[in-house]
Amino acid sequence: MTASRRSPRISRRGFLTGAAGVAGAGIGAAAVGFGVERSSHDAEPARQTLEFYGAHQAGITTPPQSHANYIGLNLKDPNDLGTLGGILTLWTQDGARLTRGEPGLSDPEPELATAPSRLTVTVGVGPRVFATAALADRRPSWLAPLPSFSIDRLQERWGQTDLLLVTAADDPVTLAHATRILTAAVRTIAPVTWIQRGFRTARGTQPDSQTQRNLFGQLDGTEQPPRQRDDELIWNDGADQPWLAGGSSMVIRRIEMNMDTWEELDRGPRELVMGRTLDNGAPLTGTHEHDEPDFEKTQGGIPVIPASSHIARARRRADHEQYLRRAYNYDDGVGETGLIFSTVQADPVRQFLPSQQRLAEHDDLNEWTVPIGSAVYALLPGATEDSPLGASLLASVGTASGVAAGG
Amino acid sequence: MTASRRSPRISRRGFLTGAAGVAGAGIGAAAVGFGVERSSHDAEPARQTLEFYGAHQAGITTPPQSHANYIGLNLKDPNDLGTLGGILTLWTQDGARLTRGEPGLSDPEPELATAPSRLTVTVGVGPRVFATAALADRRPSWLAPLPSFSIDRLQERWGQTDLLLVTAADDPVTLAHATRILTAAVRTIAPVTWIQRGFRTARGTQPDSQTQRNLFGQLDGTEQPPRQRDDELIWNDGADQPWLAGGSSMVIRRIEMNMDTWEELDRGPRELVMGRTLDNGAPLTGTHEHDEPDFEKTQGGIPVIPASSHIARARRRADHEQYLRRAYNYDDGVGETGLIFSTVQADPVRQFLPSQQRLAEHDDLNEWTVPIGSAVYALLPGATEDSPLGASLLASVGTASGVAAGG
Ligand code: HEM
Ligand code: HEM
Repeated sequence: MTASRRSPRISRRGFLTGAAGVAGAGIGAAAVGFGVERSSHDAEPARQTLEFYGAHQAGITTPPQSHANYIGLNLKDPNDLGTLGGILTLWTQDGARLTRGEPGLSDPEPELATAPSRLTVTVGVGPRVFATAALADRRPSWLAPLPSFSIDRLQERWGQTDLLLVTAADDPVTLAHATRILTAAVRTIAPVTWIQRGFRTARGTQPDSQTQRNLFGQLDGTEQPPRQRDDELIWNDGADQPWLAGGSSMVIRRIEMNMDTWEELDRGPRELVMGRTLDNGAPLTGTHEHDEPDFEKTQGGIPVIPASSHIARARRRADHEQYLRRAYNYDDGVGETGLIFSTVQADPVRQFLPSQQRLAEHDDLNEWTVPIGSAVYALLPGATEDSPLGASLLASVGTASGVAAGG
Repeated sequence: MTASRRSPRISRRGFLTGAAGVAGAGIGAAAVGFGVERSSHDAEPARQTLEFYGAHQAGITTPPQSHANYIGLNLKDPNDLGTLGGILTLWTQDGARLTRGEPGLSDPEPELATAPSRLTVTVGVGPRVFATAALADRRPSWLAPLPSFSIDRLQERWGQTDLLLVTAADDPVTLAHATRILTAAVRTIAPVTWIQRGFRTARGTQPDSQTQRNLFGQLDGTEQPPRQRDDELIWNDGADQPWLAGGSSMVIRRIEMNMDTWEELDRGPRELVMGRTLDNGAPLTGTHEHDEPDFEKTQGGIPVIPASSHIARARRRADHEQYLRRAYNYDDGVGETGLIFSTVQADPVRQFLPSQQRLAEHDDLNEWTVPIGSAVYALLPGATEDSPLGASLLASVGTASGVAAGG
């Protein structure tokens, strides 16, 4: 097996140098929401690339591409850290190649790799990776399944996995190919449990800076944390787990949206459910999308934005309760419609969980939405040419035990 | 129910006038393969529209959009021609609106209709529509399931249905919305049995005129009938069934492609299986994609293009054995990969069946492909402002029985 035969080149120094080298990336970008691309943005759309290497993985704060595959995989042997290192090295090598528009190392369809279309490859690890003794004390304190909520109707088939691989691109053929190459290479040691395929408005349909609509027709993604605070809100600072510095976390909730009952509502009630208008996404107390909602404003004694509305309930109660939402629509089978609701934040328990708890307790929107999948991952720090994904995670254990001998 | 309350305005004269009015559309377009768009092709991609009304339905010879939903629906009561007329009228009205970038008539998410992105809505009817006495003598002679082939592993869930609705657009959100509007409106009288979602390379990734690759990495769609012969090869001339003049037929075969075993082959053998090269799709006897294959050429006594290869077997044995292939990739679940292989032709028994039979008897490619779905439809003649889809089909029965009274 190719994956386990390669041993990752572990270099803590390389990792740190790499991190320092690109630490400023993204600063000076849009004030709120997603960053700008790190490279080649003048190229024609099919040739545009996003740099794979860097202090942070691409695909976390980069503007979402039109199509994304969220892929959950389970390790055949979660105790075999050599194999884990092999997988991460292989994903690093092929990820770097594919995102540049080059075929994977042993790519059977090299011609499908030539239109990178802003392909990103992003990798995370789930709780079970830390179940093995060698990694037990490297588990981020927050890396555990979310508590269960009374609104949940979780299906096992969309549950937590050991590994998360997110591939995303503006072209669906490029994306299918990248997904194939990266998953096929590890299929005997880390088979795929689920793939959640999501889409957004096609690239070029509207300006990248414009908020997109979800399948309920709502402008979704208006309120986002300011990019200037990425280092605090998005990127792990390594205080808890030094190996995770530059990494992050991702929560993935698969949430069904009931189109049939939603469409029975008139526009007025639909707007009250959200606290925003349907036509331009303005808060009910304002006129433009980005007007600050006024939750105190009343009319005839009644709050204009209902206290039970989605935005009133979701809105942060403390400054640190902020996270970047990266939602993709899904539309599968017959009538399976919803959001692959994913968020990134440095610490999901501190930043994300309070609002999720609040929404689970009450949110007018819950009448039309049902969480059917849930998973949490640590997103690895970025890779550099000298230091593959997972290098810092496996650093000392690598030399001591599994990794060097792995495979 | 909205659909059955509306009675279609049946006007045979209107239909014929409409047909005459746009009969020349597409003539003078590309010499081979797909036509050019009928309107607005200078607009930015999201605003581009394809005219819904005309002698022929759009979406049949128009250049394929990036995304398509093939939707099979069954009539609750196939004998109720009033309801059938209602459905077709509703699809005409909403199809005309949505393809122009206007919301459907009672569209709950009008904001999702504003980026038509070359949306087309194309409608066909299956054999059971003609089971009712009133339509028995209007059944096209060829409208029946294909014979079963030894290579088939057909799954009922992808089988023949009463109605076919094909929505296609370059933007997946626009497409999901159009699919929703058109299917939700008829769900109590014609529920959806299956949706096959397909994709091609994103618009703008490569020139429209360039052949695309399928997920085996092959250039797929090189050899196509010359557009100058559409009137003979694609459009029904009404000789057998006058009501069908200007219509056509569609065969849909859902064909799994086994990526795992295909990728075990080296490039040489993969090229011999097809009779064409992987890098530029040239026949093995030529150097450019569009070079004429030379099936007689031998090297050391052995044919250069194996007689058992896909193109040698598929190649027409008679001039009339030609049809337009409109293939879309699918990639669903975990490892469900293949082609929504669909063809259009005036008469599928005469033009398509011989090559399908030949391929079923032997085709080297069969080792890696498995047909799992099959269905045949009569594609209705185009609609005009005065004459909805199905007007000619339901014309005399309409006045005599079901339609006028319908609903
Ligand atoms: C299918 C489910 C959901 C839908 C359709 C949805 C839709 C929306 C929409 C339309 C907005 C207003 C525009 C915006 O700021 O983006 C919004 C805001 C928001 N949503 Fe959701 N949402 C869903 C689930 C969730 C979940 C599960 C969470 C967190 C646990 C969440 C957290 C938020 C937050 C934090 C905001 C911004 C609130 C503010 O103004 O401060 N949403 N959502
Ligand atoms: C997953 C299944 C299939 C794949 C991957 C496939 C792929 C291809 C490819 C790569 C070519 C060569 C380039 C071109 O001319 O387009 C081709 C040609 C062709 N295929 Fe297929 N095909 C499949 C199934 C079928 C089926 C079921 C039929 C008809 C029953 C068919 C009919 C043809 C024809 C008529 C040609 C042109 C042959 C000629 O050169 O005259 N194909 N196909």
